[in-house]
Amino acid sequence: MQITTLLITIEIAATIAFAMSGLIEATRKKMDVVGVFSVTFVSAFAGGTVRDILINRRPFFWVENSEYIWLILALVLAAPLLLRGMELRVTDRVMEVADAIGLGLFTISGASLALGAGMPLVVALLLGSITAVFGGVTRDVLCNEVPLVFVRGELYTSAAWAGALLLVGLQNIGVSPVIAAWSGMAAILAARLLAMTFRITLPTYTERQ
Amino acid sequence: MQITTLLITIEIAATIAFAMSGLIEATRKKMDVVGVFSVTFVSAFAGGTVRDILINRRPFFWVENSEYIWLILALVLAAPLLLRGMELRVTDRVMEVADAIGLGLFTISGASLALGAGMPLVVALLLGSITAVFGGVTRDVLCNEVPLVFVRGELYTSAAWAGALLLVGLQNIGVSPVIAAWSGMAAILAARLLAMTFRITLPTYTERQ
Amino acid sequence: MQITTLLITIEIAATIAFAMSGLIEATRKKMDVVGVFSVTFVSAFAGGTVRDILINRRPFFWVENSEYIWLILALVLAAPLLLRGMELRVTDRVMEVADAIGLGLFTISGASLALGAGMPLVVALLLGSITAVFGGVTRDVLCNEVPLVFVRGELYTSAAWAGALLLVGLQNIGVSPVIAAWSGMAAILAARLLAMTFRITLPTYTERQ
Repeated sequence: MQITTLLITIEIAATIAFAMSGLIEATRKKMDVVGVFSVTFVSAFAGGTVRDILINRRPFFWVENSEYIWLILALVLAAPLLLRGMELRVTDRVMEVADAIGLGLFTISGASLALGAGMPLVVALLLGSITAVFGGVTRDVLCNEVPLVFVRGELYTSAAWAGALLLVGLQNIGVSPVIAAWSGMAAILAARLLAMTFRITLPTYTERQ
Repeated sequence: MQITTLLITIEIAATIAFAMSGLIEATRKKMDVVGVFSVTFVSAFAGGTVRDILINRRPFFWVENSEYIWLILALVLAAPLLLRGMELRVTDRVMEVADAIGLGLFTISGASLALGAGMPLVVALLLGSITAVFGGVTRDVLCNEVPLVFVRGELYTSAAWAGALLLVGLQNIGVSPVIAAWSGMAAILAARLLAMTFRITLPTYTERQ
Repeated sequence: MQITTLLITIEIAATIAFAMSGLIEATRKKMDVVGVFSVTFVSAFAGGTVRDILINRRPFFWVENSEYIWLILALVLAAPLLLRGMELRVTDRVMEVADAIGLGLFTISGASLALGAGMPLVVALLLGSITAVFGGVTRDVLCNEVPLVFVRGELYTSAAWAGALLLVGLQNIGVSPVIAAWSGMAAILAARLLAMTFRITLPTYTERQ
């Protein structure tokens, strides 16, 4: 398998994982087919869209690759079948791993784009995690929930930051951008898998009484 | 009546219909005059603003035609009187028809702009419906509700998609853009009137037990 | 103290005040450190970011001055200590005054930028208040609340409009932009202090029964 084929495979898997999270939450809210499509679409693409607005880049990813819109539509139409399959434990775990791959891929692509646009390092860190996390935040806002990623105290956005930090650090000491990118993605994936396996959590802020 | 006069009349009617939906929901939430103004403004203009951000078009509609801001302000100040009038059944029905006209107008204007900017057909469909629907989505998010348009299962966004599809199809077989646009608008209006009269609904997704 | 030093001091105080409002609300929602950081960041910078998107201005304030991101991070890490201190009545009052200064500063800077970009007066008024208020609106949406600024009926956004109106009016009768800006800021600060002291409120819209 060639490197571009591999990258496209990762991208499709990651997009499907993010889209599925929206699809599942929208059906839980008993939305109609339009609502489910909208929330699924936003879960998959809001992160990249906000990143592109922030660095003023056009056309958007989903405008340039409009076949992704068809993928989302196919997912939504197949949802009644897919959701029945989702009950199986094994699919649940596959989804979490795909989501972890998505977190790695979108964080690193966002951070790399920001670095390429000459932005400061700390901005690149932020843009990477916004790319990866904003879709889920918008999904939860549209479903009238406090964004899950802000409250669950899991190693999630923080794993994204660690990976983006590794990317930036490696590039700064002269490692090639490609190797730095793969290392960052691998670190995020590893951190997520560890966090899921050992239930590593972050401190939650509680108001003093 | 000349064609531009007709178009401007349609645009004003549609803007007022969209604005009124925000005005009514904001007063239901017992907002103050600033909140009512903000939600009313957003209901009328968020869709077009997001469309313009997505296709990178400036100045925005409401910046170029700033007299619309005064119209919104006048609506808000007149609201206590307007809302008393709204209790009449007949006004309710007039509002629904004006909203249907707005759905048609904003969908077709959004889709036409996207096609003019050389975007793929499926993106034009999406941009058309985002233009028409995003104002209502933002209105509901600001009022802390799940967006009505995602849950009510009515022929609404789907009617917008059908009309945009007709526009794109007619243009592709060589019909003039103007006639294609009017046909698309007419189709959306007709679909909405039929849906309201016969209570046609969309399937809602329900989670398997 | 030189004028630029004074301006930077005001800007830092205002940013901290806005950030603190997000920090406090996020901890009330028992968010984790990532959520608290995100909401704090958004409270401080969403207003200026939306303004820059609306007038198509890049790089954003927080991209150009990325040391502000470190300031937010430091605030979040120091939060457990800060919040204990916040219980003291006196700090509460200091926060309100800092917030009033922020309202003045961000309103006037937003309105001045819009006027400089050649936008109509009424658009400048709106952009000024969006700059000052949008951070708080996003904060409340992310925390799943109806935006406080839309419901509390206080002289807040309306104070911002009055100050922006003064800025525009003074510039129109030939007063120098610098003096007009300071007058606008002073008017907003004075209006807020009066409103807080005498509990001046705005009419709330209530639905007719």
